[in-house]
Amino acid sequence: MCRIAAYTGPAIPLQNIIIRPAHSLLTQSQHATEAKLAVNGDGFGISWYGDDDMPGLYRDVLPAWADDNLINLCRMVRSHHFIAHIRASTVGETSRANCHPFVYGRWSLCHNGQIPHFVNIRRRLSEALPDDLFAAQRGTTDSEMVFLTLLSHWLEADPLAAINATLRDIGPATEAGPIKLTCVLSDGGTLYGFRYASSGMAPTLYASGVLDNGGRALASEPLCGNPSRWMALPHNALCALAADGMTTAPLDVKALQTA
Amino acid sequence: MCRIAAYTGPAIPLQNIIIRPAHSLLTQSQHATEAKLAVNGDGFGISWYGDDDMPGLYRDVLPAWADDNLINLCRMVRSHHFIAHIRASTVGETSRANCHPFVYGRWSLCHNGQIPHFVNIRRRLSEALPDDLFAAQRGTTDSEMVFLTLLSHWLEADPLAAINATLRDIGPATEAGPIKLTCVLSDGGTLYGFRYASSGMAPTLYASGVLDNGGRALASEPLCGNPSRWMALPHNALCALAADGMTTAPLDVKALQTA
Amino acid sequence: MCRIAAYTGPAIPLQNIIIRPAHSLLTQSQHATEAKLAVNGDGFGISWYGDDDMPGLYRDVLPAWADDNLINLCRMVRSHHFIAHIRASTVGETSRANCHPFVYGRWSLCHNGQIPHFVNIRRRLSEALPDDLFAAQRGTTDSEMVFLTLLSHWLEADPLAAINATLRDIGPATEAGPIKLTCVLSDGGTLYGFRYASSGMAPTLYASGVLDNGGRALASEPLCGNPSRWMALPHNALCALAADGMTTAPLDVKALQTA
Amino acid sequence: MCRIAAYTGPAIPLQNIIIRPAHSLLTQSQHATEAKLAVNGDGFGISWYGDDDMPGLYRDVLPAWADDNLINLCRMVRSHHFIAHIRASTVGETSRANCHPFVYGRWSLCHNGQIPHFVNIRRRLSEALPDDLFAAQRGTTDSEMVFLTLLSHWLEADPLAAINATLRDIGPATEAGPIKLTCVLSDGGTLYGFRYASSGMAPTLYASGVLDNGGRALASEPLCGNPSRWMALPHNALCALAADGMTTAPLDVKALQTA
Repeated sequence: MCRIAAYTGPAIPLQNIIIRPAHSLLTQSQHATEAKLAVNGDGFGISWYGDDDMPGLYRDVLPAWADDNLINLCRMVRSHHFIAHIRASTVGETSRANCHPFVYGRWSLCHNGQIPHFVNIRRRLSEALPDDLFAAQRGTTDSEMVFLTLLSHWLEADPLAAINATLRDIGPATEAGPIKLTCVLSDGGTLYGFRYASSGMAPTLYASGVLDNGGRALASEPLCGNPSRWMALPHNALCALAADGMTTAPLDVKALQTA
Repeated sequence: MCRIAAYTGPAIPLQNIIIRPAHSLLTQSQHATEAKLAVNGDGFGISWYGDDDMPGLYRDVLPAWADDNLINLCRMVRSHHFIAHIRASTVGETSRANCHPFVYGRWSLCHNGQIPHFVNIRRRLSEALPDDLFAAQRGTTDSEMVFLTLLSHWLEADPLAAINATLRDIGPATEAGPIKLTCVLSDGGTLYGFRYASSGMAPTLYASGVLDNGGRALASEPLCGNPSRWMALPHNALCALAADGMTTAPLDVKALQTA
Repeated sequence: MCRIAAYTGPAIPLQNIIIRPAHSLLTQSQHATEAKLAVNGDGFGISWYGDDDMPGLYRDVLPAWADDNLINLCRMVRSHHFIAHIRASTVGETSRANCHPFVYGRWSLCHNGQIPHFVNIRRRLSEALPDDLFAAQRGTTDSEMVFLTLLSHWLEADPLAAINATLRDIGPATEAGPIKLTCVLSDGGTLYGFRYASSGMAPTLYASGVLDNGGRALASEPLCGNPSRWMALPHNALCALAADGMTTAPLDVKALQTA
Repeated sequence: MCRIAAYTGPAIPLQNIIIRPAHSLLTQSQHATEAKLAVNGDGFGISWYGDDDMPGLYRDVLPAWADDNLINLCRMVRSHHFIAHIRASTVGETSRANCHPFVYGRWSLCHNGQIPHFVNIRRRLSEALPDDLFAAQRGTTDSEMVFLTLLSHWLEADPLAAINATLRDIGPATEAGPIKLTCVLSDGGTLYGFRYASSGMAPTLYASGVLDNGGRALASEPLCGNPSRWMALPHNALCALAADGMTTAPLDVKALQTA
């Protein structure tokens, strides 16, 4: 289990989401309240968008609370659009290549959850990738594979269709346990979030209302002391946050559930 | 708060203390039960004694559970005498120089606890060190300073007197909170442990009885599933474990308590 | 020996100085041409100024060429005033606390050179610091001590006087070898550079002319393929680069040279 | 280009090969004389054999010269059979998973050289692996892929045949440049070394004569000041060092050279 926070809106210092709030992502790294583990100490990462076509990416293997660079970066860097992640590892050793977000072109993705039978489908998913995405593999996580598979299904053209196709590729859960994917992803323009669980509950993900500065945020746990202003994302639906508000569209999970 | 485990006896693989027991030091790094924090993820270290005059030292800033090198080392290296530590930082950033054990000559020391007013006495303690120990400072922790101060008081000649003198140097607690020092130290021959608190309880430290292989261990929490065979060390006493058994001598803390 | 690059002028991406030039700081990390060692692989750091009172600081112990975060940061972060450093260690282990720049309040400093008898004067310099600067010590380098000593001599009020006073504190060279200090420092407004050698040559430092974008740079080695546009800084003089050009004032080193 | 040193014989401290010799592996990390690059600072690793079935493995991403743990380990650990490597990266980022040696079961391998067209054959080689070896992939180097491909060809049963089959799998060189594989590998009993180049010279590898203590070593550059006692391994032959001496058998490279 991991924790995620993301933002879109007027440019702000990264610290306004990641460090300053009463229940900031940094606080959640040591005192998560809605996760199986209270501690997320297996690395962290941030992707942030600016003038350049590709987002910036900062990842390291230290616990987020132990990295002075992170504090400095979050104080100095302003962005209108960013995703941050703190990791509690399930699959894959602690290395930068296994830290989220994963970035490819304009896209970046963070994942919270698990494909318990990943060891059985890693090879199939890997071999289904087109050459450029196959060559882009850097680590050993189910999360990176989900990201590359999404990209292979034309994520840019139709995110909803790409997610549905990826869920089909992953296939039904096995005796190893339910598939749980709570993801936040972005192309730098729209911030997407979804929760999928083959059964039971997917890891939490909340959308803020319109923040005081006019922006919006997604977070594994409400960042402020007033959770009533945050809304839990529904299961099995894709939420899209853009300048003009939030929209929601259902995932096509019927076939999967009955498989 | 941190967790400590140490061993003296017939040579064994380090993993027999650090990894294999049901409630091993590695387990305690994520699931400590008698500490304020359940997680000790701010680095770790091991000093172990062998043929060489000086102990070996392995320290790194990763959480112990995330370091494959540690697993390999503990599997391969055998020692008759070693001390291991996992850190939850109170003072001092996460760096190798701030990881325990601290080693100087034949001596090594691990500390669990805190001098809450260390910022006020660091300078005085540092300036009281003889030149060679002054030059040996590498990090910024109260723990390293306690170690160097112990050495400056002829630790080698009389450990009990050195501890008493060090406690006097530290002086009485202030409004910042009680002084708490639970330490394990060694010269490679005898394994010493003590718990000192200016008021209240010092962090836990237990001595095993004679283990199945004839050795003895000290640990912040009993390593096996049968705590009844472990004895909590008394407060304000120096325990010494050697080949011929365990002895205990009271610290001279009266003057300090009433100061 | 280390390599330094710094910039002041209109805001630019950090990469325009650190990565993109034909003979960039990153290139110098593997192929320095005017240093004793061609390789500077013992960590690196950047301080950069923005809206905040304090500069940002990014330091890590990897070789600069091996850090993807550095590439990303330099691509995404824009600044009007920054200092960067790559380290080839002489004194002090490879740790973040020993990486340059050192930052205190608004000031940051990078050093290239060595005080060969530092082990003999570290204690004296440390004990001469006022309490707040004493408490700010984090590492074990001569460079950090030079920085704190400069600050103790009212660097903010009169940089030239502070440098002269610091050179007096360091004292004359010993049989250990000549003192060599090539430093770049800043308060975020003016960029200062100086070269001092008790005898022989101090490490190189060049000032660019006015760059195409109107800015100016300091660098251990000219960053572009046209060194004729760069001017070697004179020995024993303080150069100050600000919006309105460069000024130079001699250090008061006579007394030292004859001591 | 990287540097390798390996040893088989009576148990010795690792430092006797890695650190103490006049031209030790550690010295070669900063001052290699027979490599394209004098510096090998992109991580290092050691596999060493002891009582356990599997070798120990210690790898880290720091330059070898900057790692105190390595110095301590090499001083304290004794082994009768070990392989060490310092890396100058060609393909693959600096991460532990990309550091040599690679270990699988009893086998470990270090590689010095390059498959310039690896990006074009990575997928084919990966997909040809049996499931267990496919799942063992951790990094992104050509070296790890060579190791896994060797294992897939029954390395345990017939090393010479496995190497020939692997060279066939890699196929002929392309316009990207000649294939160069200088490898040292072991199952803990016999130490193997070979140099293969599709054209031109493969990276150097020398065999010591019988050392003073009765052991033998392989090294990229002779470790002592007396190179006359070291013999350059011939191209395109597999050398095997065991307790009873060294044997050499030609690789079957004719078909490859003319392909």
